[in-house]
Amino acid sequence: MNVSPVTDLPEISAGDDLAALIAERADGDVDVVCVASTVVSKAEGRARDLADFPAGPRAHEIADRLAELSGDEKDPRFAQAVLEESTELLMDEPFLLTETRFGHVSVNAGIDRSNVPENDILLLPKRPSESARRLSDELGVPVIVTDTCGRPFRHGQRGVAIGWAGLSASRDWRGEHDRDGRELGVTVESVVDELAAAANLVLGEGAGGNPVAVVDGFDMDGFDGSDNLFRAVEGDFVRQALRGWSYAGH
Amino acid sequence: MNVSPVTDLPEISAGDDLAALIAERADGDVDVVCVASTVVSKAEGRARDLADFPAGPRAHEIADRLAELSGDEKDPRFAQAVLEESTELLMDEPFLLTETRFGHVSVNAGIDRSNVPENDILLLPKRPSESARRLSDELGVPVIVTDTCGRPFRHGQRGVAIGWAGLSASRDWRGEHDRDGRELGVTVESVVDELAAAANLVLGEGAGGNPVAVVDGFDMDGFDGSDNLFRAVEGDFVRQALRGWSYAGH
Repeated sequence: MNVSPVTDLPEISAGDDLAALIAERADGDVDVVCVASTVVSKAEGRARDLADFPAGPRAHEIADRLAELSGDEKDPRFAQAVLEESTELLMDEPFLLTETRFGHVSVNAGIDRSNVPENDILLLPKRPSESARRLSDELGVPVIVTDTCGRPFRHGQRGVAIGWAGLSASRDWRGEHDRDGRELGVTVESVVDELAAAANLVLGEGAGGNPVAVVDGFDMDGFDGSDNLFRAVEGDFVRQALRGWSYAGH
Repeated sequence: MNVSPVTDLPEISAGDDLAALIAERADGDVDVVCVASTVVSKAEGRARDLADFPAGPRAHEIADRLAELSGDEKDPRFAQAVLEESTELLMDEPFLLTETRFGHVSVNAGIDRSNVPENDILLLPKRPSESARRLSDELGVPVIVTDTCGRPFRHGQRGVAIGWAGLSASRDWRGEHDRDGRELGVTVESVVDELAAAANLVLGEGAGGNPVAVVDGFDMDGFDGSDNLFRAVEGDFVRQALRGWSYAGH
């Protein structure tokens, strides 16, 4: 399996034909294209200014509390932007952990404060799997929209998929057996997340970073796929635990 | 970056010289070798029978409760094995989520019930980073010991690193800037986990699965590294939340 960056992509602005810009630069065999959400957001016009988010009372309350905890000033308009991009606030201190409107759990609803030359912030794509679908239709290959985020239990961030089209989210190993005929412990492998992680190794975030990577030599042949990626709270005991938890009490 | 399986590795048994068996089969340029924990465990003699774990009262209590919740019989000796491999039980129902003795949070202390032809269960390596160090010293390249496990918020399992040697766990982007000179939102990238995820895409778990992959074309040049991978509970709010949570109450 080969993972390579697509180089020399220009700075992306609202309205740019991202698929065409990628197609001109991605040569050779391509099984999957991984696109950083930053450039998808830029092409879709998701850069915003804080002035676009006049803060309500809840955002003021959140910003005051975060400022008190951190000792740094916090802009209530940023908290307002996070609230507007979220369907649930899983934690409101000492940072904002939210579920975005499309089901992804991340800090600050995945809103980026770097990577936007002309504006204050960059929102995630509104519906990343629909973005992936449009790119995939134009490129003729499966597409994954990636982001980087942290996680419980382990330090550091890693690449994850937030949208995908043209391939299943997971490979289903149920019914498969090991060499001795015992059923496997691993049942569902999140291939879109693993591909996003692999892509993130060659993407980079810095000034020299490339936001698109192509994967060659990956196939899903012989596997059933499933298309669940984001857990519902009913089956997610960690989310249930967070509902009953308060930072102040600890 | 190229990720390829090392093929034709024989079935591994206690005492086998895993490094030599890999070295004979890994040709070409190699920057990192990723080795599934199953074969490391087998070579280190970590296969066990349930008879090795006579169950104490706590294991009986856990197994009874899990049997009650699931409607299936549960062997208290398995619960005993999980307890003996763990330093903390983060959840004891509806499944066992533990911190292993080396700091990794996983279900059932990562104990595998498939992949062991002659025994009942396979424990994780005792100190996976020490295993990686020994392999790395013999192979002359960085080594990552990988496992697959699930996670909160997202369905499915993915490859993760549980031990590493010869490279840093993370790339540190602090102080790096985007094209416009703003500081990056991503600060610490867990490259060992991303490499483990990439490797897992070509490893496979089934009868035709290969337990070793080599990565070529990855380098850490120009980055500071850090060697934290497992979060301490003090900085992990999700773990703190789990301490106060009970399944029964929900």
